[in-house]
Amino acid sequence: MDHKSTPIGAIGEFGLIEKLTDGISALRSSTVKSIGDDAAVLDMGSFCSVISTDLLVEGIHFDLGYTPLKHLGYKAVMVNLSDLYAMNAMATQITVSLALSNRFSVEAVEELYRGIQAAAYEYGVDIVGGDTTSSMSGLIISITAIGQAPREKLVYRNGAKVGDLICVTGDLGAAYLGLQLLEREKQIYLENPEIQPDLEGQTYIVQRQLKPMARRDLGINLQNLNILPSSMIDVSDGLSSDLMHIARQSEVGAKIVEEWIPIHEEAKMMALKFQIDPSTCALNGGEDYEILFTVDRKYEEDLHDLDDISVIGEIMPADYGLKLVTSSGNEHDLQAQGWRHFDDTE
Amino acid sequence: MDHKSTPIGAIGEFGLIEKLTDGISALRSSTVKSIGDDAAVLDMGSFCSVISTDLLVEGIHFDLGYTPLKHLGYKAVMVNLSDLYAMNAMATQITVSLALSNRFSVEAVEELYRGIQAAAYEYGVDIVGGDTTSSMSGLIISITAIGQAPREKLVYRNGAKVGDLICVTGDLGAAYLGLQLLEREKQIYLENPEIQPDLEGQTYIVQRQLKPMARRDLGINLQNLNILPSSMIDVSDGLSSDLMHIARQSEVGAKIVEEWIPIHEEAKMMALKFQIDPSTCALNGGEDYEILFTVDRKYEEDLHDLDDISVIGEIMPADYGLKLVTSSGNEHDLQAQGWRHFDDTE
Repeated sequence: MDHKSTPIGAIGEFGLIEKLTDGISALRSSTVKSIGDDAAVLDMGSFCSVISTDLLVEGIHFDLGYTPLKHLGYKAVMVNLSDLYAMNAMATQITVSLALSNRFSVEAVEELYRGIQAAAYEYGVDIVGGDTTSSMSGLIISITAIGQAPREKLVYRNGAKVGDLICVTGDLGAAYLGLQLLEREKQIYLENPEIQPDLEGQTYIVQRQLKPMARRDLGINLQNLNILPSSMIDVSDGLSSDLMHIARQSEVGAKIVEEWIPIHEEAKMMALKFQIDPSTCALNGGEDYEILFTVDRKYEEDLHDLDDISVIGEIMPADYGLKLVTSSGNEHDLQAQGWRHFDDTE
Repeated sequence: MDHKSTPIGAIGEFGLIEKLTDGISALRSSTVKSIGDDAAVLDMGSFCSVISTDLLVEGIHFDLGYTPLKHLGYKAVMVNLSDLYAMNAMATQITVSLALSNRFSVEAVEELYRGIQAAAYEYGVDIVGGDTTSSMSGLIISITAIGQAPREKLVYRNGAKVGDLICVTGDLGAAYLGLQLLEREKQIYLENPEIQPDLEGQTYIVQRQLKPMARRDLGINLQNLNILPSSMIDVSDGLSSDLMHIARQSEVGAKIVEEWIPIHEEAKMMALKFQIDPSTCALNGGEDYEILFTVDRKYEEDLHDLDDISVIGEIMPADYGLKLVTSSGNEHDLQAQGWRHFDDTE
């Protein structure tokens, strides 16, 4: 199509987005925040509207070989709501677009939609629109979530300050290990369909992969304690990569203490079985949909009143870089693996 | 996946949407209008926010064999803006999500994005977010458009009253004929690559297919003349099908006069060449992205001051049904062909 032809894998997702959005500037005064955060922010007068959108593609983001359709619908909603909660906003509405190949029956689509509706109902958001079309192959789900927040409550990726505490909700790495387990059981099944999947004792990690729960509670709890974080992002690509977004946009460095990274016991056991370092799963696994945030040290005491929050490090000056302090006291540079779907070698 | 398995083609797009959205009711007070119109409407206090989303799939909605990527990007934006203009709203922002197979180079994606940016710039909307991912096969474009309007200016599909005039902007059927021409030239090319496509004298219909222009002007002109339509919809599926939406939701009938349907000379000529009735193209072709609207007869005089508007019929009582009065004076029932991508026999 063009005489020059650069494979997308050569510059990666972030490189592509940077290239495409370079030079785009907002013309409308209502555009408060454009590309580059978890969600866009639009000025609505008395408050701000917050909008996030995700495209999920069969074979890339999910495998129907082990993903029940209802769970898939639920997760597709969570992925989007998570982006709004990572702005310290409240989710209010979603639109749902589906492209379906003709191997899907009406009943299958209804099952998918039941998951979408369950998620919407549980999180108090209305399904207000969408589009339904056919596809040549596979299932594509595009969800846009709309939310709101007072302008002064919104938290971006770029507000972290040197000395701030780095915190994360819940635990990390389990979703990745759940995926590894499901992939393994699928291989075993493909090689010998008579062997039934053995997921016993692994309900937590499987659930974390198949049915993540967006952290709506964090914003509510922070509000009750009058804590306003300095930056927030949801952990979708992995702790390293998402921390790197905060560091880059806030123009700071960060130090993470390996021992402080919250990892569920079941995830640790499974990591050992797979002979992977549990910390590596937490740092690079992704799909946890927890929220990573930074707060001023003045809130240190108040943080103890928050359930299910771990302080995992502190914001450092930019020239420090991003480092992990291991149990043995060594400091290693953090690598952002992030999202590499375009990478053919993966 | 389920013991019962109904092919989607058996109930069609509208049937599927009805089945999926049946029983969904809005919980949030800010949800003014949910599924069932061109766009969703959310109450933002001093005005309403209007949101529309479309999913475009390669091989279903476009063929890269004859669609330049830049035009495709432009059209993808138009399709969405058109939905907002069909609510009598102003478009302000869009989000753009892309799924790309690895046959697309960085340069190809940039070309696509140039078209998206050109459309956004021309129509004064900001690109505020999106998602970029890979796909197993082909290109998928998901665009969400956000706009606004004062609540009392919004026009829905359900307000048409008996006696109202039925009007349409521009002309109809040309986009469909442009598609037929491009398809024919593609076949000729595939059979003999040495024959170059012959599109001479067909620039209008080709342009209508490849580069439709959403009718932002209508809302502005109506506003200047202080005309508030009773119902509006954009002509994406074809006049018959879109008029049927208005009739069904307004609980009325409609009479269309064949001779009054605006058809461009070039479209008429091409219809003759293809031996198709030009009116059939206008009624069932779709993709014109003109706006079909109804107005009270008290505005009849004022309508003459509007450029590029045709009165094509009038709203009748529900028991009249939907009829076309032919040149010979006969009345025929209108059939909604609409969108049939799920139909295997097409």
